[in-house]
Amino acid sequence: MSTITIPDILPSLKEDCMRLRKAFQGFGTDEKAIIEVLGHRDARNRAEISRCYYMLYNESLIYRLKSELSGDFQRAVILWTEDPSKRDAELAHEALKRKKDQDIWVILEIACSSSSDHLIEVRQTYCLLFHSSLEEDIESQFAQQGQLKEFLLRLVSSYRYEGDDVDEQLVKSEANSLFCAIREQQPYHEVIRVLSTRSKAHLNAIFQHYKQEYGISIIEDIECNSTDDKKLTSIIKVAICCLQSPEKHFAQVVNTSIIGFGTDEDSLTRAIVTRAEIDMKLIKEEYKNRYNRTLHDDVVGDTSGYYRDFLLTLLGDK
Amino acid sequence: MSTITIPDILPSLKEDCMRLRKAFQGFGTDEKAIIEVLGHRDARNRAEISRCYYMLYNESLIYRLKSELSGDFQRAVILWTEDPSKRDAELAHEALKRKKDQDIWVILEIACSSSSDHLIEVRQTYCLLFHSSLEEDIESQFAQQGQLKEFLLRLVSSYRYEGDDVDEQLVKSEANSLFCAIREQQPYHEVIRVLSTRSKAHLNAIFQHYKQEYGISIIEDIECNSTDDKKLTSIIKVAICCLQSPEKHFAQVVNTSIIGFGTDEDSLTRAIVTRAEIDMKLIKEEYKNRYNRTLHDDVVGDTSGYYRDFLLTLLGDK
Repeated sequence: MSTITIPDILPSLKEDCMRLRKAFQGFGTDEKAIIEVLGHRDARNRAEISRCYYMLYNESLIYRLKSELSGDFQRAVILWTEDPSKRDAELAHEALKRKKDQDIWVILEIACSSSSDHLIEVRQTYCLLFHSSLEEDIESQFAQQGQLKEFLLRLVSSYRYEGDDVDEQLVKSEANSLFCAIREQQPYHEVIRVLSTRSKAHLNAIFQHYKQEYGISIIEDIECNSTDDKKLTSIIKVAICCLQSPEKHFAQVVNTSIIGFGTDEDSLTRAIVTRAEIDMKLIKEEYKNRYNRTLHDDVVGDTSGYYRDFLLTLLGDK
Repeated sequence: MSTITIPDILPSLKEDCMRLRKAFQGFGTDEKAIIEVLGHRDARNRAEISRCYYMLYNESLIYRLKSELSGDFQRAVILWTEDPSKRDAELAHEALKRKKDQDIWVILEIACSSSSDHLIEVRQTYCLLFHSSLEEDIESQFAQQGQLKEFLLRLVSSYRYEGDDVDEQLVKSEANSLFCAIREQQPYHEVIRVLSTRSKAHLNAIFQHYKQEYGISIIEDIECNSTDDKKLTSIIKVAICCLQSPEKHFAQVVNTSIIGFGTDEDSLTRAIVTRAEIDMKLIKEEYKNRYNRTLHDDVVGDTSGYYRDFLLTLLGDK
């Protein structure tokens, strides 16, 4: 489902490092060469290049990229080159500092659209980098927002079973208990419990059964029946989307970052960089079906320069 | 702090495996040889022996031990030979099935007396073995016990920062917020929040500050001021002990398993097997100071046969 393209015959690690080193030296920086190397290597290659570069030149590739590049292009290349668990720990930390509504999406993406093992790695790296745990920081940043805090805490702390085994009886009884809680207009406790503990296979089975049995999707049903906390309801909607069909969520992230006046480059970069190797093909299809335009055209229309070239490279369009 | 003794010159892995194989073959089993080999090897050696044994004889060492041994001796040797994260996942699963008061201790020990990384490994292994997550099973087993369930869930889901950095201002303000919550006889929410997120260094600083500032230990203060939920109060007490001074908790586990009529071999085995390589020296000291008897004498008095020999080997007394 990745959109990046990797040469059939890869240069050696040393050759890649030497090309990068050359791009940094002399007058100006050769941005094209940087895109050419890093934009066409997978996560494992990039990690090896980082290690090899440090060994050869005794300097951190990330620091060198920071000093050579700037602006949105710099941010995109750095996020792409960093170890994914470090990248996500940093994104979560930034989001918790800013704490705007859209920043909660970052936490939901990491908690709900990652594998259990990746989420754990992000939490480990978070502790190492920031000397506090992700849970602690959510706890203090959302101290005044009881149920929202509880929801985020439970999601980031989860370690879901990732197999396909689903207990059909449990699916039916939980779909029913969710239905009752939602219709009694007290959905949050039960929704939080189920969404934060069950496996994705189990959740998908619940969502399907819910629609079949009650003739309405669980998201729509929550929206119709919750009047007291619009914000929490919209966050639950995003979480369900991230758990069930991340491609739909990320198509929306890209679209939201582009529509209207100006571009939200941070969100655009995050969506493309974090999903290029996971499900970007699906995101592009979803984008086309939903917005009747191509993701490629919208990126071209809203970005420019090396930043645009780099994003298009990750989209496999360059 | 380990009490096991390892020979200065270790036999090769192959020699150890051959000795075990010989102990299994022929008429009867040579239990002494099994104790001699496995009781004097550290966790890494035992893991290597398990792997090498499988390679040499195409059978699982654990399965073979299960078929050769029986009773408490079998259980102790198996728990000792298993990978520690598998062992703890199995102990947690057993405890959740039985769900007696003392079984909650097992969950608290794994959640509060382990490193963050070990706790994560236990959760990963739990998913692999039982096709559900530890949180899910706690959620369903304690569904009717709101705050207790919440406390256990939060503890097992934690990934604590393990460094020594402590924010003194935060320590003071949290000691104060705990004090206020406890004196207003509504301690649980705040106690659960702090105990399940903060680092052990931070918690120790809070406990010390609490005693200095308010003239009473936090445990005593919770006990004096909570009248509504004696069970949760006693569980919180055990959790604080596991977080702050595991040796005190495990000295009590051993003592409780021995005093009175009959012996609780499962608890005795668990305490000695899981702590022999971690802090058994401290546990023995604590035991002597607290009960005025040696742990050695009490084990000798309450156990017999190869089971006794094996426990004494792990205690470094044989």
